[in-house]
Amino acid sequence: MPTPHIHTVQVQWGHSDPAGIVFYPNFFTYFDEATWALFYAAGLSLDVMRQRYNCLGIPLVDAQASFKSPCRFRDVLAIESHITDVKEKTFTVQHVVKNGGREALVGREIRIWGIVHPDDPQKLKAMPLPPDVLNALGV
Amino acid sequence: MPTPHIHTVQVQWGHSDPAGIVFYPNFFTYFDEATWALFYAAGLSLDVMRQRYNCLGIPLVDAQASFKSPCRFRDVLAIESHITDVKEKTFTVQHVVKNGGREALVGREIRIWGIVHPDDPQKLKAMPLPPDVLNALGV
Amino acid sequence: MPTPHIHTVQVQWGHSDPAGIVFYPNFFTYFDEATWALFYAAGLSLDVMRQRYNCLGIPLVDAQASFKSPCRFRDVLAIESHITDVKEKTFTVQHVVKNGGREALVGREIRIWGIVHPDDPQKLKAMPLPPDVLNALGV
Amino acid sequence: MPTPHIHTVQVQWGHSDPAGIVFYPNFFTYFDEATWALFYAAGLSLDVMRQRYNCLGIPLVDAQASFKSPCRFRDVLAIESHITDVKEKTFTVQHVVKNGGREALVGREIRIWGIVHPDDPQKLKAMPLPPDVLNALGV
Repeated sequence: MPTPHIHTVQVQWGHSDPAGIVFYPNFFTYFDEATWALFYAAGLSLDVMRQRYNCLGIPLVDAQASFKSPCRFRDVLAIESHITDVKEKTFTVQHVVKNGGREALVGREIRIWGIVHPDDPQKLKAMPLPPDVLNALGV
Repeated sequence: MPTPHIHTVQVQWGHSDPAGIVFYPNFFTYFDEATWALFYAAGLSLDVMRQRYNCLGIPLVDAQASFKSPCRFRDVLAIESHITDVKEKTFTVQHVVKNGGREALVGREIRIWGIVHPDDPQKLKAMPLPPDVLNALGV
Repeated sequence: MPTPHIHTVQVQWGHSDPAGIVFYPNFFTYFDEATWALFYAAGLSLDVMRQRYNCLGIPLVDAQASFKSPCRFRDVLAIESHITDVKEKTFTVQHVVKNGGREALVGREIRIWGIVHPDDPQKLKAMPLPPDVLNALGV
Repeated sequence: MPTPHIHTVQVQWGHSDPAGIVFYPNFFTYFDEATWALFYAAGLSLDVMRQRYNCLGIPLVDAQASFKSPCRFRDVLAIESHITDVKEKTFTVQHVVKNGGREALVGREIRIWGIVHPDDPQKLKAMPLPPDVLNALGV
């Protein structure tokens, strides 16, 4: 397993619901932030992705999370993310969210590396992650 | 399978990202809305849940979605939701999201029926869904 | 004053904060939804705006709201919106939000009618609302 | 004028709309975050506010923003916030948002210092900011 990238998020007032805990869809927002942080930390900005690889984005095909303990306003969360399960058309980003050192939830996103579709520039085509992208991501 | 409850959502400008498609965590927001709509349609308002069943809420333990086709600004989505997999400590809400009649995504939430914990009124304890709640939900 | 357009929103669980009331930025989200609803009801879809008027959008230059009474989960809000203060470079959308018949907040958005800038297609130029657009909006 | 507190926010993918710029209600979310950051930096956590001052929160009565230039994905924003216009029942938090050193927007929130209402513990009563709170906030 590559060393996970750590993205830190502080729970804001507006992230929590009337029960005083983070409204769960916000964790997927944190996942998305963590994934972009992972890519940018690897030198894979959206501009680089577009210009060097003709890749327009990394849209989701699946997302999942298992919640273990609630997070609250002002909690500082460390999101440990790394790439797993690189397949021909998809790759997975695994996220472990620690709250005060304790695992609060784990989840994953399955995404595609979406290049401009040769038959329709409005569409994306799933392609394998290029070798130097895998390398940059430490896979 | 019980007849699913249908909750309608129109995609708003602010739900979409720079790629012009719904930012995926918003689909979990739609799921949460659809689950509450299902419960309220069954007469299970938060007040009823609290007063009749000592149930403080139905927090998530797991959520998942598989995305098939993107949704865009002004699309009208029909979310078909029903309860499945009723277990001793959890139940599942299955969601199928149709966009113009076509399946755009499917997902599920695993939740608990959380009553006031006998040892700590600040905490929730997972309990089986009461028989008349199951009945009201058409399970 | 033209007859205001009425856009209805039901407060969702995730719109409310740990105090049990709507997290205030969500009211601006409701305003944005209400403005688009007003334009679409007048036949001014984004496609029509783009194709007929070369208008790429109606970005904000100013927004304001005064809050009178809190709104809570499941409240059904009627947002009454109409255009006021049409100026050469801006127009204002006034919003009155009623909760159970009672005024919960009032606010306004000052926006521009943004056409493709003649010197730079990446930028917008503020232009007066065309006469038939004003007419369609009942101004 | 007291030295403003600086709160830093990085624009995330999900904060931006199909026009590629921050969806404007998110700036009010940033304002709310900046206000809490200002209070916490002054030692005024929610716990301190509750225990020492019987203050349950600082709800909004008015919010406003003027937008000067758009912000985009990955922009790092410095939000300079300070308290102004301390009145008997309200106080104002002024926010200046700088993007790469350039003013992108300015805004303000008018809030109350809400203590438990003596006649109804469910309600808040607006009270003047206590002298040592003003002092802590550098006013």
